[in-house]
Amino acid sequence: MPKVAVIMGSKSDLEVCIPAIRILKKFGVEVTVRVISAHRTPDEAQCFSKNAISNGYEVIISAAGKAAHLAGILAAYTTLPVIGLPVKSSTMDGLDSLLSVVQMPSGVPVATVAINGGENAGILALQMLSLKYPDIMLKLSDHKKAMAAAVSEDDKNLQKEFSL
Amino acid sequence: MPKVAVIMGSKSDLEVCIPAIRILKKFGVEVTVRVISAHRTPDEAQCFSKNAISNGYEVIISAAGKAAHLAGILAAYTTLPVIGLPVKSSTMDGLDSLLSVVQMPSGVPVATVAINGGENAGILALQMLSLKYPDIMLKLSDHKKAMAAAVSEDDKNLQKEFSL
Amino acid sequence: MPKVAVIMGSKSDLEVCIPAIRILKKFGVEVTVRVISAHRTPDEAQCFSKNAISNGYEVIISAAGKAAHLAGILAAYTTLPVIGLPVKSSTMDGLDSLLSVVQMPSGVPVATVAINGGENAGILALQMLSLKYPDIMLKLSDHKKAMAAAVSEDDKNLQKEFSL
Amino acid sequence: MPKVAVIMGSKSDLEVCIPAIRILKKFGVEVTVRVISAHRTPDEAQCFSKNAISNGYEVIISAAGKAAHLAGILAAYTTLPVIGLPVKSSTMDGLDSLLSVVQMPSGVPVATVAINGGENAGILALQMLSLKYPDIMLKLSDHKKAMAAAVSEDDKNLQKEFSL
Amino acid sequence: MPKVAVIMGSKSDLEVCIPAIRILKKFGVEVTVRVISAHRTPDEAQCFSKNAISNGYEVIISAAGKAAHLAGILAAYTTLPVIGLPVKSSTMDGLDSLLSVVQMPSGVPVATVAINGGENAGILALQMLSLKYPDIMLKLSDHKKAMAAAVSEDDKNLQKEFSL
Amino acid sequence: MPKVAVIMGSKSDLEVCIPAIRILKKFGVEVTVRVISAHRTPDEAQCFSKNAISNGYEVIISAAGKAAHLAGILAAYTTLPVIGLPVKSSTMDGLDSLLSVVQMPSGVPVATVAINGGENAGILALQMLSLKYPDIMLKLSDHKKAMAAAVSEDDKNLQKEFSL
Amino acid sequence: MPKVAVIMGSKSDLEVCIPAIRILKKFGVEVTVRVISAHRTPDEAQCFSKNAISNGYEVIISAAGKAAHLAGILAAYTTLPVIGLPVKSSTMDGLDSLLSVVQMPSGVPVATVAINGGENAGILALQMLSLKYPDIMLKLSDHKKAMAAAVSEDDKNLQKEFSL
Amino acid sequence: MPKVAVIMGSKSDLEVCIPAIRILKKFGVEVTVRVISAHRTPDEAQCFSKNAISNGYEVIISAAGKAAHLAGILAAYTTLPVIGLPVKSSTMDGLDSLLSVVQMPSGVPVATVAINGGENAGILALQMLSLKYPDIMLKLSDHKKAMAAAVSEDDKNLQKEFSL
Repeated sequence: MPKVAVIMGSKSDLEVCIPAIRILKKFGVEVTVRVISAHRTPDEAQCFSKNAISNGYEVIISAAGKAAHLAGILAAYTTLPVIGLPVKSSTMDGLDSLLSVVQMPSGVPVATVAINGGENAGILALQMLSLKYPDIMLKLSDHKKAMAAAVSEDDKNLQKEFSL
Repeated sequence: MPKVAVIMGSKSDLEVCIPAIRILKKFGVEVTVRVISAHRTPDEAQCFSKNAISNGYEVIISAAGKAAHLAGILAAYTTLPVIGLPVKSSTMDGLDSLLSVVQMPSGVPVATVAINGGENAGILALQMLSLKYPDIMLKLSDHKKAMAAAVSEDDKNLQKEFSL
Repeated sequence: MPKVAVIMGSKSDLEVCIPAIRILKKFGVEVTVRVISAHRTPDEAQCFSKNAISNGYEVIISAAGKAAHLAGILAAYTTLPVIGLPVKSSTMDGLDSLLSVVQMPSGVPVATVAINGGENAGILALQMLSLKYPDIMLKLSDHKKAMAAAVSEDDKNLQKEFSL
Repeated sequence: MPKVAVIMGSKSDLEVCIPAIRILKKFGVEVTVRVISAHRTPDEAQCFSKNAISNGYEVIISAAGKAAHLAGILAAYTTLPVIGLPVKSSTMDGLDSLLSVVQMPSGVPVATVAINGGENAGILALQMLSLKYPDIMLKLSDHKKAMAAAVSEDDKNLQKEFSL
Repeated sequence: MPKVAVIMGSKSDLEVCIPAIRILKKFGVEVTVRVISAHRTPDEAQCFSKNAISNGYEVIISAAGKAAHLAGILAAYTTLPVIGLPVKSSTMDGLDSLLSVVQMPSGVPVATVAINGGENAGILALQMLSLKYPDIMLKLSDHKKAMAAAVSEDDKNLQKEFSL
Repeated sequence: MPKVAVIMGSKSDLEVCIPAIRILKKFGVEVTVRVISAHRTPDEAQCFSKNAISNGYEVIISAAGKAAHLAGILAAYTTLPVIGLPVKSSTMDGLDSLLSVVQMPSGVPVATVAINGGENAGILALQMLSLKYPDIMLKLSDHKKAMAAAVSEDDKNLQKEFSL
Repeated sequence: MPKVAVIMGSKSDLEVCIPAIRILKKFGVEVTVRVISAHRTPDEAQCFSKNAISNGYEVIISAAGKAAHLAGILAAYTTLPVIGLPVKSSTMDGLDSLLSVVQMPSGVPVATVAINGGENAGILALQMLSLKYPDIMLKLSDHKKAMAAAVSEDDKNLQKEFSL
Repeated sequence: MPKVAVIMGSKSDLEVCIPAIRILKKFGVEVTVRVISAHRTPDEAQCFSKNAISNGYEVIISAAGKAAHLAGILAAYTTLPVIGLPVKSSTMDGLDSLLSVVQMPSGVPVATVAINGGENAGILALQMLSLKYPDIMLKLSDHKKAMAAAVSEDDKNLQKEFSL
């Protein structure tokens, strides 16, 4: 059973992380949920990341806001793919978080998803895992079909509503 | 031997893609380099992406500038992880490309790296592949050490220069 | 009777589209309202756009938010004019949508209107149609006069209010 | 023979307009090229726009930079579709021009294309005209195929180059 | 008695204009309040501005949002100083209005104040008038002193509150 | 003879100020050119501004870049109208200068012109002076006509060039 | 006992300053709280800053919004370190304040903290003081440990919650 | 003799750091110059910062570009004041660096100076040190006077030049 860590820089980022956790669990992935701050518990960040591979993690999701250094720091200590989830804070509409997460210097990438894009962080982790776990690839394919079906349903309803 | 596609929206994006291609090849990954435009050859984009899995690709890197839809379109047709590489164009300093690539709606993530971050797109692809290919994980670890050594070398030289 | 398609990337964009639909209908245009997602139902987007001309559409209005690729994708498959209506989402105040819609690369334009500018998307479609349908041109001229009259009315009231 | 006006706010905008003029002429459209400033020759702007329909124009392309009011002013006096072409000036990287052109208030749309997107302004005008002139629609279709062929050619060359 | 026009592009801008109107009246200036739209009643804008001098106006305050062309258009038709008051609209946090008002091309300036800075528009008009009307200069000086006194009062209260 | 001060925060702002100085002199205005820094010679700034009225100045033009506080500080010490000229520096494309100059808090306005808009700063000063000096109003009217003539000349030439 | 001044440009900035005041007092620092406006009480700003050293102050915290010149002006008159606390106002999401505070020209730095980052302004002042006052350094170290403990507590709780 | 560390994230940041190093040395401060990368040599960053106090450092200057995490990471491991110097990189005009450095979450401030503001980073360090080292305070006062004199000299020259 694949294992993913969802690490947030502050308890207040939980709401944005919930959709990631939910979809990972729905796909049968073991999820560890942590609060580790790049700035307030940096030793824990280092420790977690250095041992992530030996502890069986395969992907790390990191959510943080403002000057969001967490994903970068985790990526510094591991070769696992790190997904950065920028969290919108009370100023700058998420732009600070986004740029702090995505604009990583050469050598240490962070796979960045949309601001507050919790579900996409989860799905991206699943896509990475699907390279190794064929059943996840199948489930992702089903999930894609379900999404399409939901849009089609909305489409049908709206067409009806407006054809009257 | 793992296989990665590097797809650019226009021939002019090649320079930004070169570092991605180079590091992937250096790691022994088979690389397919393509020019496919989301807007000018959309059928090819669709065709490529729909068949990417059956054609043996495991990761797709997509580079484009301005209203950069290529990564999103490729991601729409596959469950493979798609890495988005925003290319800086002559206006807006890359912000248009970045937002067009990273701000994907729920359900279809694109793993975005820094504007013009070609090498990081390559390394991120390698990190994803490393989940399945242990030798790539080893090489990534070596690469990390080499980067550290290079910085340490710079550090030593600078310390010397300024201690005089 | 001219026919216009109003296509939104998600049901949640409906509110922004309503003023477009309303004014088109008021002008006697047949309106098809659809939910088609560039990323979740891309085949439908392609199919719709490829057949838009043969199905009698003359203008396409496309509303989407965040990394808003829908208008671009529709424009990729047709030579009909495509009007892009950027929808403000919960982060970035609409800038991501605007840039994703307007910054189209050479060869495939999208006629972009203001963020959340639903009514203007409708009027722009009518202006395009007016080249071919003289009665729409007449009605647009009346509409312009009515707008002017409404502003003049406000002007008169305010002048009165403040001259006291 | 359809007639389009390409109006620029200053002689210095000519370079950005050339691709629009070129493609319009290539498609057999009669093009009038004017320098009319919303702020320095406003009477001329008004006069041109008020008489545009009776003078046989069907689309107006308006190019301007900075606080680019020209397109809006032209649109104020006519029901013809007005295409706004934001020109990048020496500061703000074109953002000022873009927002000044696209963010039109309700009632008076401007069909905005990308910053410095001269060719797209021309193509968009052709798409509008194609509703009425079937031969333009045919030529647009050919143009689309030619663009696709050019990308495919680039694609083939690059594939060869990198398969060595 | 000096005369100032406060012209807003839409009735909805009234709230932002109220502080300008209030302070002008408090200083004994005759104020004309108008709703004139650069895009919906452009003839009125032109007419007002062309005759502003002969009608006895000395300063024009122009408030508008989004692609705020009103101030520029008024400035195009008169040599009176035009004060531009950018109004924050529902998207882009006022940046579109600000850039549309302030980034005027060479030859036709608009004296721009802060986004939603109604009171400052009024005070700036008074400062301009004070060059000619000595009593306004005196009143402005008193107003400055009153502002200083109010801040000093706040200062004293806060010092007391926190010295406890 | 009216007197205007052109004050720049640094000698390096001179180039941006030259067009202001030139047009003021051309209109027969006495111009004092100063380098006064809000941060490096604040006493001089205060001294200049406090005595500006008694020294016969009627308008102050203030040019500065980055965190451009000069205009605000000058405005703090006088009731004369202060024109703020934001200067583009090597980063942030002038946005920092613009916002620092224009976003003045309630009570102390700065009449802001475009980034690097030196000539407009000069013309705005002349417009203010024209309220009191009828000959300047006449000259401004002539200047407006000359500008219009120059645009018309460009217009004629371009029309000829493209009608061939 | 070290002494720090917390100066805000307007009474309305108090809420953002409270966390700075609170933590300074908690660390045993004497805090003077003032309302001094760079634009409305500039003499007071100058007077305060010129005498800050002789009055025993060691660090100045300055909070202001919009075109936030207060920190710069205070820094102009003293060699004490001045901490700039940009306050988010009703438009521009704090970007205007941030750029006005941080982008100081060469020679007169302002130590800028995050938008609305009141607590950090206080902690930064304490860090500066800690160079001279060893007991503050000790308390800062304890504070760091307490922050870490709080995050660890959150971490433990969340781990528990999600391991169920 | 006080000791300051100037740490840059990459050798390429040296040019921006030189003015900081120069002024610190000019003031008789011992300067250690290091290249330490938050992402490529994170252990070194941690090690340096954890031991900075015991190694006799009193202030740390940290220069980095793009997603500039270095200052934040150093600040995480020490209670010394950390000065963040955002370096402009090839995209985003320095905004990414600035936001990544300044928008630190509560508890761990970074004293941020202007983008590429090397000299100001040095002066700010000196201001902090001056709290403890009276001779530095004296020299800073002299430096302030010298700056003022240089501006006054420029002022005199320009006045002469333009009074002719």
